[in-house]
Amino acid sequence: MSAIPRNQWYVAAYGREISHELFSRTLCDEPILFWRTEAGSVTATSDRCVHRRFPLSQAPSRLVGDQVVCGYHGFTYGADGKCVAVPGQTRVPRTARLTSYPVVEQDSFVWVWIGDPALADASRIPRVPYLDAAGWTTVSGREPLAARFSLLVDNLLDLSHETYLHGGYIGTPEVANTPITTEVDDEAGVIYVSRHMDDAECPPFYSRSTGLEGRIARWQDIEYTPPCLYKLHSRIAPVGSVPNPDGTDPDAFHVEVVYAITPETENSTHDFWAVARDFALEDAEVSAFLAENNRTVVLQDVEALDVLEKIIATEPEGYQELSINIDTGGLAARRMLARMAGARDEATTR
Amino acid sequence: MSAIPRNQWYVAAYGREISHELFSRTLCDEPILFWRTEAGSVTATSDRCVHRRFPLSQAPSRLVGDQVVCGYHGFTYGADGKCVAVPGQTRVPRTARLTSYPVVEQDSFVWVWIGDPALADASRIPRVPYLDAAGWTTVSGREPLAARFSLLVDNLLDLSHETYLHGGYIGTPEVANTPITTEVDDEAGVIYVSRHMDDAECPPFYSRSTGLEGRIARWQDIEYTPPCLYKLHSRIAPVGSVPNPDGTDPDAFHVEVVYAITPETENSTHDFWAVARDFALEDAEVSAFLAENNRTVVLQDVEALDVLEKIIATEPEGYQELSINIDTGGLAARRMLARMAGARDEATTR
Amino acid sequence: MSAIPRNQWYVAAYGREISHELFSRTLCDEPILFWRTEAGSVTATSDRCVHRRFPLSQAPSRLVGDQVVCGYHGFTYGADGKCVAVPGQTRVPRTARLTSYPVVEQDSFVWVWIGDPALADASRIPRVPYLDAAGWTTVSGREPLAARFSLLVDNLLDLSHETYLHGGYIGTPEVANTPITTEVDDEAGVIYVSRHMDDAECPPFYSRSTGLEGRIARWQDIEYTPPCLYKLHSRIAPVGSVPNPDGTDPDAFHVEVVYAITPETENSTHDFWAVARDFALEDAEVSAFLAENNRTVVLQDVEALDVLEKIIATEPEGYQELSINIDTGGLAARRMLARMAGARDEATTR
Repeated sequence: MSAIPRNQWYVAAYGREISHELFSRTLCDEPILFWRTEAGSVTATSDRCVHRRFPLSQAPSRLVGDQVVCGYHGFTYGADGKCVAVPGQTRVPRTARLTSYPVVEQDSFVWVWIGDPALADASRIPRVPYLDAAGWTTVSGREPLAARFSLLVDNLLDLSHETYLHGGYIGTPEVANTPITTEVDDEAGVIYVSRHMDDAECPPFYSRSTGLEGRIARWQDIEYTPPCLYKLHSRIAPVGSVPNPDGTDPDAFHVEVVYAITPETENSTHDFWAVARDFALEDAEVSAFLAENNRTVVLQDVEALDVLEKIIATEPEGYQELSINIDTGGLAARRMLARMAGARDEATTR
Repeated sequence: MSAIPRNQWYVAAYGREISHELFSRTLCDEPILFWRTEAGSVTATSDRCVHRRFPLSQAPSRLVGDQVVCGYHGFTYGADGKCVAVPGQTRVPRTARLTSYPVVEQDSFVWVWIGDPALADASRIPRVPYLDAAGWTTVSGREPLAARFSLLVDNLLDLSHETYLHGGYIGTPEVANTPITTEVDDEAGVIYVSRHMDDAECPPFYSRSTGLEGRIARWQDIEYTPPCLYKLHSRIAPVGSVPNPDGTDPDAFHVEVVYAITPETENSTHDFWAVARDFALEDAEVSAFLAENNRTVVLQDVEALDVLEKIIATEPEGYQELSINIDTGGLAARRMLARMAGARDEATTR
Repeated sequence: MSAIPRNQWYVAAYGREISHELFSRTLCDEPILFWRTEAGSVTATSDRCVHRRFPLSQAPSRLVGDQVVCGYHGFTYGADGKCVAVPGQTRVPRTARLTSYPVVEQDSFVWVWIGDPALADASRIPRVPYLDAAGWTTVSGREPLAARFSLLVDNLLDLSHETYLHGGYIGTPEVANTPITTEVDDEAGVIYVSRHMDDAECPPFYSRSTGLEGRIARWQDIEYTPPCLYKLHSRIAPVGSVPNPDGTDPDAFHVEVVYAITPETENSTHDFWAVARDFALEDAEVSAFLAENNRTVVLQDVEALDVLEKIIATEPEGYQELSINIDTGGLAARRMLARMAGARDEATTR
C-alpha cells in the first residue's frame, strides 16, 4: 500500500547537522535518532525507547558520553542501540535493543539504509563528489514539503515549469518551448532527460552569478537515480560555444544542481537542495545570491506542491490526469518507483 | 451517499463579486473558476488544470485577455474551457478541456448548474426580482458556515428560534408562541410555512427601520424552493391593518428576506443573505442598520450551527432527534431534499 | 471496542466547581450538564437538548430558577431532566426527557455513575476522607491530558519515572533503584504497589514542606482502585524512624497524594490531582509551594503522555513494548481495566 520504496539508501541529513547532540528526523515514516559519537562517527537508531516508546530525542532524555538515557524511566543505550541499564534491576533483558540503521557519510550527506540491513550495499549509493570537492563551491539547504515525494519527482523531471512557476528567477520562454529527449536505463536504474537550448535568454540566476551578458547556450541534463538522488548538470556558455572533443569546456560555466528527495511520511518530504559551481569559487556575494535565489525557487515549488497534496487528499476516486511529451521522464520515474515500492507496474503513484 | 442534490441550480456568487479577475469558489464539492470576459459575461469552469491539477485561480496562474494560463506549466484555456496551448509541442490534445458549467446571471445572483449540463433549464431558476428592482433597496452579504447545508435549512424553516437565539434582535415571545401553518407543493417543489402574529411586540430590527411604535401586526410567510432558495415575505403593519382586496397594502412595510443556501462541501455551506425593503429607499442609515443587524443575526445562526456540526461529527450511531409541530416544514424539506439527492424517502438527512 | 469501562463511578469535578450556573464536562465520551439546584444538590443530565441537540450549557441557553431553557428553541427542563415546556404548543411529548446520571458528592469530589443507573451503588465509591477532613490540609487541581487514560494509569503505577521525568522535583536516584512489591486483590478490585526507601535523599518537594534536613526514610504505598481512583500513601520520616505498634507515627510526616483518572474521550483524560498533608496545616506558604510544585510535576507527566498519545496514533500495527519488573503493577492494572471494559483478558489496552 505504501508508495515509499524500502531497501533503499536515503539522504537523512547534511553531515554538518549532526553533532554530539541528540537529533531526530523521521525518514520513510520511521522516527530515527542521530548523534555523533565522541570519536566522530554518526549513529542512527530508532528514536523510541523499547520500554514505553518515549522519544530518546526528547528532554529530559539526554546523551551521557556515548550513551543515551531515556527521560521517562532511564533505560540506557549504547551507540549500537544495545540497552545497557534499566531501572530497579541489574539484569538487562537480552532483547532490549534499539533498531540500528546502516549509515554512510559521503559527499556532505548522511545516507541511511531503510529496509533490511543485510541488503545494505554502500557501493550502490549514487555519488555527488562536487558537493564536497576542491574546485567547486556549494550552497545548500533543506525545506520541509507537506506533499508526497512523488509530486517533487514529477516537478523536477519536467523543467518546463521553470518558465511559469519560476519566471523571473530561472525560467525563460525557451525552457517550455524547447523539446526534450528522454532515456531510461532500467538496468542501472537511472532516468535521463535533456534539453539543450542553443540560443536562449539568460535568466537572473545565471546572469548575476556568471556575469554573462546577452543570449546564451543553456544545457539542462537531468540524471535521476530513484528514489532519492536527482542531479541537474547545467551548462551555461556564450551562444555557439561547445565543449572540446577532449571534454574540456573552458568557455562554459558549470552548475551542478542536486536534490535529495527523502520521504518523511507518505504525505510529506524532506526537500534537500544543493547548488555547486566551478566558477567564482571565493566570491561570497555569488554564494549568497545563489543560496537566496535557489531557496526562493525551492519555496515556489513547495508552495505549489503543498497545494497539490491538499487537492489530491479531497479529489474524487478515479481522477485522471492528462499527460503530454514533457511528462515522458516523469512517467518513467513513476513506473520505476512503483516497481521499487513493490506495486504492480503502473503509470501513477497514487 | 452524498446529501447534496445534483442536477440543480445553485447561487455561486453575487454578480458584483465577479470581475475580469480569476475568482475561485467551491460549490457542492466542486472547485469552480469564475471570471468575467472582456465582453462582460461570466464564465464558470473547473478550477483544476487538466495536466497536473494545479488550481487555475492560484498565482502565478493568470488571465491574459480572455484566456487563462496555468501557473505551473502554462496550459492555456479559452473562456469555454477548451485548451488552446501546451508547452513543448504545437499539437494540443483533443481531450484537453476544462469542465464548463452553465451560468445564469439574474436578480443580482450568479447561478450555476451543478450536474449534467444537458439538463440545465434556466427557466426553472426561482426568481427574486426585488433584489435588483426599482422601488426596492437591498442590503446583502455572505457568511461561511462550517456546517452541512441541511442544518441551515432546518434553522430557516422553523423561525420559532428567533425568540431564543435572536432575542433582542428579531425575536419576541410571540414568534415561538404563535402556531404555524405548513403547505407542501410537491409538484412545484415548494414548501410554505406561515405565521401571522396579529398583535405582537415590535423587535428592534423593525422598529428602528420602519419608525413604527407600539405593537404591530407581523406576518412571516416562508416560501422555500429546495435546494437553494429561501424567501421570507415579511409584512409589518399597525395592529388591525390588513391589505386591500386589490392587493395594495399602503399602511404596511414589506421586507423580503432572501437566503441562498449553497453547499460548499458535505460539511460546509455558503450562507448568502439579502434584505430588500419597499420603504426608506434612500435612507443610508436604515440600510446600514439593517445590514449590520441582519449580519449579526446570521452570525448568531452560524455560531449555533457550527456547534451542531461538531456535535453531529462525534455523536453515536442511531442518535434520535425529537420533533414537534414547529418542525413540520423542516421535516418536509428534509424529505424533499433526500428525494432530490436520490436517497430513499427518509425523515432525516443524516 | 472502547477501552473505557462502563458501569463505573468516575470523578466528574470538585464540588467547588459546581454552583448555580450551567457547567459542562465530557466524561467517558458523554457530554454532561451540571448545576447546583437552589437547594444545593448537584444535578447531572445530558448536555444536549432532545429536540435538535443544541448544548444546554451554551449561551443563550440559561438557567431560570431550577429549570434550564435551551438557547435554540426554548425547550425547558427540570432538574430531573424532564421537559416541561416546548414552543408553539402546550402538549409536551411524554418522551421528552434528558438522560439523567446518578450523582454523589463526597470527599470534595462530585462522582457520577456512567452506565446503567439501575446498577449504581454509592457504597462502592472508594473513599478519600482526608481530602475534606479535620486534621488535614489539601491542595488540588485538574489538568487536561490529550492522551488515553491508560497512559496515565501506566505512569502512576510505576513511580520509578520520578527519578528521570521529575528529577529535581520529587525524584531522587533511590526511587528508580529500589525494588517494588506488588499485590493484586482481584476480589476487591485493588492493586497495591509498595516501595520503601529506608535511607534516601530528600527531594525538594518534601524537604521544603516538612523542614526535614538530611537523608530520610521515604515510603510510597500505592493503592489503585480501577478505573478512577489512585492513592499514594506517602510517609516521610527521619532515617530509622518506624511507626509504633499501635499505628501512631509521631515522628513521620504523612502526605496523601490522590489522582482521579477520568476519561474525557477515548484519547483524552481529566487528570485530577490532590495533595493532603497532616502537618503545617495552617501554613499558607507550604500550601502554595506544594500546589505549585505538584502542578509542575503533573504538567511534566502531561507533556510526556501527550507525546506518547501522538506516537501511538501513528505507530504501525503490532508494535511491541518491552516490560520489566517495575511494570508489574501497571500490567495488572491493564488486565483489570480490560476485564472491566468487557474485552478479553489481555496485557495491553491497545
